[in-house]
Amino acid sequence: MTVVTALPDLLGEAFERVQADIDSAFDAFLPVPDDTRARLVEAMRYAAIGGGKRVRPLLLVATADLFGVNRSAAINAGCAVEAIHAYSLIHDDLPCMDDDELRHGKPTVHTAFDEATAVLAGDCLHALAFDILSQPDTSTDPFVRAELVATLARASGHDGMAGGQMMDIMSEEQAYDLRQITRLQQLKTGALLAASVEMGAVLGRVPPEGRAHLRAYARDIGLAFQIADDLLDVEGDEERAGKALRKDEVQGKQTFVTLMGVEQARAQATMLVEQAGRHLASHGEDARLLVELARFIVKRDH
Amino acid sequence: MTVVTALPDLLGEAFERVQADIDSAFDAFLPVPDDTRARLVEAMRYAAIGGGKRVRPLLLVATADLFGVNRSAAINAGCAVEAIHAYSLIHDDLPCMDDDELRHGKPTVHTAFDEATAVLAGDCLHALAFDILSQPDTSTDPFVRAELVATLARASGHDGMAGGQMMDIMSEEQAYDLRQITRLQQLKTGALLAASVEMGAVLGRVPPEGRAHLRAYARDIGLAFQIADDLLDVEGDEERAGKALRKDEVQGKQTFVTLMGVEQARAQATMLVEQAGRHLASHGEDARLLVELARFIVKRDH
Repeated sequence: MTVVTALPDLLGEAFERVQADIDSAFDAFLPVPDDTRARLVEAMRYAAIGGGKRVRPLLLVATADLFGVNRSAAINAGCAVEAIHAYSLIHDDLPCMDDDELRHGKPTVHTAFDEATAVLAGDCLHALAFDILSQPDTSTDPFVRAELVATLARASGHDGMAGGQMMDIMSEEQAYDLRQITRLQQLKTGALLAASVEMGAVLGRVPPEGRAHLRAYARDIGLAFQIADDLLDVEGDEERAGKALRKDEVQGKQTFVTLMGVEQARAQATMLVEQAGRHLASHGEDARLLVELARFIVKRDH
Repeated sequence: MTVVTALPDLLGEAFERVQADIDSAFDAFLPVPDDTRARLVEAMRYAAIGGGKRVRPLLLVATADLFGVNRSAAINAGCAVEAIHAYSLIHDDLPCMDDDELRHGKPTVHTAFDEATAVLAGDCLHALAFDILSQPDTSTDPFVRAELVATLARASGHDGMAGGQMMDIMSEEQAYDLRQITRLQQLKTGALLAASVEMGAVLGRVPPEGRAHLRAYARDIGLAFQIADDLLDVEGDEERAGKALRKDEVQGKQTFVTLMGVEQARAQATMLVEQAGRHLASHGEDARLLVELARFIVKRDH
């Protein structure tokens, strides 16, 4: 396979555009009420607006683009995925979970507000995601709306993201082998990335039997993403990352890097990204953004 | 209006049947996985199975019955509402929220397991609710599925239950008047009770313009429910209630009882229940269960 030269403008512009669109969408979905719920909605806005790379919404939008989906529909669905991601970060940062004080370079929600507000703001972003997906603004086709909800609900619950987070918590007490770490990460990180791609295909009315290559792409970048995260935890710069690093080592957790070593982990991530790109070969140049995004996932420094 | 003699068998049997059906449904939705997520799913089962009166599922099923809805569809939707109710209790009981150790007469989830597991079990029951509603088993009509999701998501987020919980937290710092207390309770307790009735009507394919009398019934029983709860907090027996009481007084919170006094609060609740029953007059004897349920709501001692 020919190595495509980096096209930073294509990816950089796509990120900027999706970041602006997601911020606008959250702004519109979250007007601050004129009563004591103001504090709650301010906390939701603090967590949802202006932070994060928006990898998941971009994955969704770029997949939807392959099938000519209306952009505002894809942005709405992307906003729902990002609302789930944002709620999970708020809850994961809580003192009883990872106890983090910094996220996206600013104080975590429970630090900037308080713990009770953080729990509720997470819960409300969780509900907002399904509120958005079930509205006709996201799709006029109720079948599409119901399938979007089904995909996101399954990917975020005990058989997805939150189940992976539980396995991660248990890893402090129990040593996992590579098979178990792979399973953990497929749930914790992979499920929501895969759902983002899947939801783009759902919006594009691609039948399940036509999504195999997209699922293969999503599975590969999901693993690559987590390997890159583990490498970042070992080698990254805390200021660039905007969060605490070296936590895996302190907690004695098994990761791809502790199990494979830095060199092999890096090689594995690169292999996965190349493989991910090949899954999209049938889309030709149309898939350039998704291919670039896969490369970004392993090269990012935050 | 003639006072109908109490028919304890009708209501008692309906409660028993719905309790058994909801327990079976949760049992089927929540097989314990063969990995370290077992602890998470055990916590979900601990919170969801065998506890609670199942007032919301019964409201949903009894409303759906007015329109000849298939019972297993109504039980699935009732299970979703109860999953939301159960997640909210887990999170409300957390040390950073109400810090309760007892719920339904047994240790709260964070006491029986731990705080991190409790946060995640709540999150996963939240996701499970929308997972259930979006499945064809709940309704073969995707329009119905999408509308069920929309109704429950809106009723549980910042414009519903969780928003009311935030107002409740803020009431420790700010004195509310009767109008604000009513608004708080319409969100905190009323929204999910109203959603239960609404979802029964959605399953029954009642168009929005045909639901006004059901919404009026739901609004009245929602307020009556909360007044009864406030009275129970003042007058109830902790052992029967299975949770800590007299908390409003300790926290200096305004409630319907502190604002209206015990006698007027009781009279108001009774008036609301009679009024709720009258809204259903057009359904005649078919609505007997809903009328009985309204009466139970103010007479319950737990």
